Amino acid sequence: MRLTSKVLLITCVLTAQGCFANSQNEQSITTHANKPKNIIMVVADGMGPAYTTAYRNFADDPTTDEVEKVVFDNILVGNSSTYPAKVSGYVTDSAASATALATGVKSYNGAIGVDVDKNPLATVLHKAKEIGMRTGLAVTSQINHATPASYMVANESRHNYDEIANSFFDDRIGDKFLADVMLGGGTKHFIRKDRNLQQEFANNGYVVVNHYDELTQALKDKPVLGLFAPLGLPPALDDSNQERLAFLTEHAVKHLENPQGFFLLVEASQVDWAGHANDIASAMAEMHDLAKAMEYLRNYVERHPDTLVVLTADHSTGGLSIGANGQYAWNPEFISNMKASVGAIAKQLAKQRSPLQFIEAKFGFTLSEEDKKMLEKVVGERDVETLTTQLKAFLDTKTNTGWTTSGHTGVDVEVFAFGAGYQEFIGQTDNTDIAKKMFKLLQK
Amino acid sequence: MRLTSKVLLITCVLTAQGCFANSQNEQSITTHANKPKNIIMVVADGMGPAYTTAYRNFADDPTTDEVEKVVFDNILVGNSSTYPAKVSGYVTDSAASATALATGVKSYNGAIGVDVDKNPLATVLHKAKEIGMRTGLAVTSQINHATPASYMVANESRHNYDEIANSFFDDRIGDKFLADVMLGGGTKHFIRKDRNLQQEFANNGYVVVNHYDELTQALKDKPVLGLFAPLGLPPALDDSNQERLAFLTEHAVKHLENPQGFFLLVEASQVDWAGHANDIASAMAEMHDLAKAMEYLRNYVERHPDTLVVLTADHSTGGLSIGANGQYAWNPEFISNMKASVGAIAKQLAKQRSPLQFIEAKFGFTLSEEDKKMLEKVVGERDVETLTTQLKAFLDTKTNTGWTTSGHTGVDVEVFAFGAGYQEFIGQTDNTDIAKKMFKLLQK
Repeated sequence: MRLTSKVLLITCVLTAQGCFANSQNEQSITTHANKPKNIIMVVADGMGPAYTTAYRNFADDPTTDEVEKVVFDNILVGNSSTYPAKVSGYVTDSAASATALATGVKSYNGAIGVDVDKNPLATVLHKAKEIGMRTGLAVTSQINHATPASYMVANESRHNYDEIANSFFDDRIGDKFLADVMLGGGTKHFIRKDRNLQQEFANNGYVVVNHYDELTQALKDKPVLGLFAPLGLPPALDDSNQERLAFLTEHAVKHLENPQGFFLLVEASQVDWAGHANDIASAMAEMHDLAKAMEYLRNYVERHPDTLVVLTADHSTGGLSIGANGQYAWNPEFISNMKASVGAIAKQLAKQRSPLQFIEAKFGFTLSEEDKKMLEKVVGERDVETLTTQLKAFLDTKTNTGWTTSGHTGVDVEVFAFGAGYQEFIGQTDNTDIAKKMFKLLQK
Repeated sequence: MRLTSKVLLITCVLTAQGCFANSQNEQSITTHANKPKNIIMVVADGMGPAYTTAYRNFADDPTTDEVEKVVFDNILVGNSSTYPAKVSGYVTDSAASATALATGVKSYNGAIGVDVDKNPLATVLHKAKEIGMRTGLAVTSQINHATPASYMVANESRHNYDEIANSFFDDRIGDKFLADVMLGGGTKHFIRKDRNLQQEFANNGYVVVNHYDELTQALKDKPVLGLFAPLGLPPALDDSNQERLAFLTEHAVKHLENPQGFFLLVEASQVDWAGHANDIASAMAEMHDLAKAMEYLRNYVERHPDTLVVLTADHSTGGLSIGANGQYAWNPEFISNMKASVGAIAKQLAKQRSPLQFIEAKFGFTLSEEDKKMLEKVVGERDVETLTTQLKAFLDTKTNTGWTTSGHTGVDVEVFAFGAGYQEFIGQTDNTDIAKKMFKLLQK
C-alpha cells in the first residue's frame, strides 16, 4: 500500500482539512494516482439509516455481550441528502434520485435520465463507456426498472418500461452498446410480441442466459444479457439463491474485468420493495444479500486496490423504525429463521391441514399460546393479500417494528466508500454530488 | 490556520488511510499538536437522522431552486451506534446512552454513570477537572436530568433526582466541585424543604442566578449556578428567549475560558421531549435553537482553533419520518410560523371567543375551509391534553409527518465534529468510542 500512502500524503498536503472530510472544507483534489481504474456504484434502493442499524441487530450474535460489527460499519464515510427538484417537493422517488446519482442533476419524480425540462442527460455510465471502459448492471429488479434505467437511458417517465427496454438495445455511445453485462429480471419487457430484444442482443454477439447456473458458461470476454425472471427476481427469501445479488455482482465483475477498466452499477432493488410492503423479514433478507455482495466487493478491492466502490441509497422507504409503540425494544430473533417470505407463506396457508404448525415451521420459532390465539383469528382469512398483511402485522408486533408509510421518506441516507479515490465521498454530501465526483474521477 | 494545516499534514503522513476516515483503518493517532485545549461536547437528545434532514427542509427558502445548507451540513463526520448493554436490548434510554458517551462503558437503561453492576464510572468531565480544566453544563432540561447527570455523578437510577442533585454539590474531584458553570433548569430539586443546594452553592462562592438577564452580571472568573425554571426550561416556542440554548452556551463558554482550558457539556434536551410528544412544531423549534448554538460554536472555533466541538445524539425519539401515509411530500410551511407551542395554544383555546381565528393567528397560516371543518370537531374538546393531541395530529396531517412511538428507536445517529482533533471522530463509531476518544484527547 506504499503507493496509496504516498497518494494520501499528496492529497492531504494539498487539501489540508479537505483531506479529513470534504464537509469541513469544500476544496478537494484528485491526484492522477488515486483515480480508480474500475468504479462499482452500489445503490441500495430504499435503504434509509434504520435499515443498516436494523441489519446490525438482525445479524448480531445474541449469545455475546457486544453487538458484532457488520460490513457496513467499516466503510461508512458520510450521509447524503436525496431531495428531488423543487417541483417534486422534499421526498424523492427512485427515478429522480437515480437520475441525480447517475447524472448530477436534480429532476422531477418519475424522470429517467432527463432534467426538469425533459432534456436527456449524460450519465456516469455513458461517460465510462465513452472513454473506453466496459460497463454493466447487476440488479434484483427488472433491468429496465427506475434505478438501472436512469444510468442507461433517457425517458420522460419510469413507467414507459417497453420504451426503456427498447432504448437499452437501440441507444448507443458512438457505435457501442450501452452495457456489456446486464444481469437481473425483465423477460416480460425484453421478450415481447412486438419485439424480442433478448434475441436482438443474441444476434449482436451477446451471450444470453436465463438461469443463474448458465452464467458460468458465459465466456469471460463476451457481452452478457442475463434475464432470470419476468420482472424482478424472486424475493431473497424465496429465491433458489438467497444471495443472488452477491452472485450476480461477482459474475458481473468477472465478465467486466479488462485492461481499460469498467463501471458497474449494482442495485439491491428489493430492499425498497420490502419497505413498500412494510415487510421487515424480507427487508432483512434483502439486506443480508446486499451485505454478502459488499463483503465480496471488500475482498475484491483488497486484491484490486485500483477499484473504487461507493454504496448509497436513493432514499428511505416505509418510515421503518427499530422499536415502536412506546416499547424500548426490537426483537429480530422472530425473523432470523424465516423459511420463506411472508407472502409465499400466506399463499400456501389455505392448503394446510394444520396452519399454525405450518406457520411455526415457516417462521422458524415456537409460537406462544398468546401467538396462537392471535394467529387463530388470522388463518381463516382466504384473501391472500389480507392474510399477508395480517401476518406481517403479527411479525411487526413480535419484533416491535414500526412503519409510517407504504411510500418513501425524506431522511438523509448513508454513504459508504472504499478503494481508490474513496476519500472524495467523506462527509455530508448530496445525491447530485456523488455523480459529480464520479464524473471527476472518470476524467481522462 | 497555518498551525492547523501543519497538524493535519503530520497526522496524515503518519496515519495514511486513517487520516481520511477511522472507519477505513482502525489505526489513528493523536499528535500533541492537535490535542484540543478546550472540548465542547454537544448532545442533541433524541435527534435521530430524520430531525437534521427535517430541519434542513424546515429552514429551506421555498422561493429558491436549491435547498439551502444548514450548519449541520458542513460539520458531519459520521454516524454512531447507540445500543445499551445487552441486558437492555437494542434500544437505549438517555441515561444508558449518556453514560456511554460520558464514560465509554455500556450500561443498562436508567444507569447514571454506573456500569451494569452499578459500580461508579469515571467520566470525561471528571478527567477534565482532574487535569485542571474548568468544567461546565449548559442544558435546556433540569441540570440533574439523565444526560448532564451522567457526566457529573454516579447513581443507580436516573429517577433519583434529589440524590443526583445532592451529588452535584457533595461529590468532589479532589477538593474541587465537579462543575464551575451549571446552566439550565431545576430549582425544584436544588431548592427543597430538606435541603437548599442553591444556597449551599452560593455559600461556597458560586454566583447564583435565576433569570437569563442576570447572567451578564455574573463575574467571568467566578463559578456560576444558573437555574431558570423549576424543572426543564420552557419549550423554545414559549420561552422568553427562543434561542436560549445558544444564549446559555455562549455564556457558559465565556465563564469557562481560562489558560488551562475547559470541558463544556451542552445539551439540546428538549428535541427529545418534542419527539416523545410527537410534536413536530416543537421539534423544529428546538432544532432551530440547537442550530443557533452550533453556529455560535462554529464562529467560536474560527477564532479559537484550539477548541474541539463534537455533536451527536444519544438516540432517536418518536420514530419521526419526513413523509407518511403513502404521500411523497413533507410540508414544513405549516409549522414555520408558529407563535407558541401546541400545548400552550391548547391551554388558551378554551378562553377564546373565536377559537378558529385564535388557532389561525397562533399557527401562523390561513386555514382552508377543509382545515376549519377538521378543527371545528376539535375545538370543543375541554381536556387540554386531548386537545393538544388532536392539534398535533392536525399539524401532522398538514405537514405529512409520521411517528411510530412515544418512546425511543434504535437507529444510528449522526456525529458532527470540528476544531482541534475532530478527525478522531470520522466514520462509523459507537457511543462508547466517543468517550474513549475524548479520554485520549484529555491525556496530559
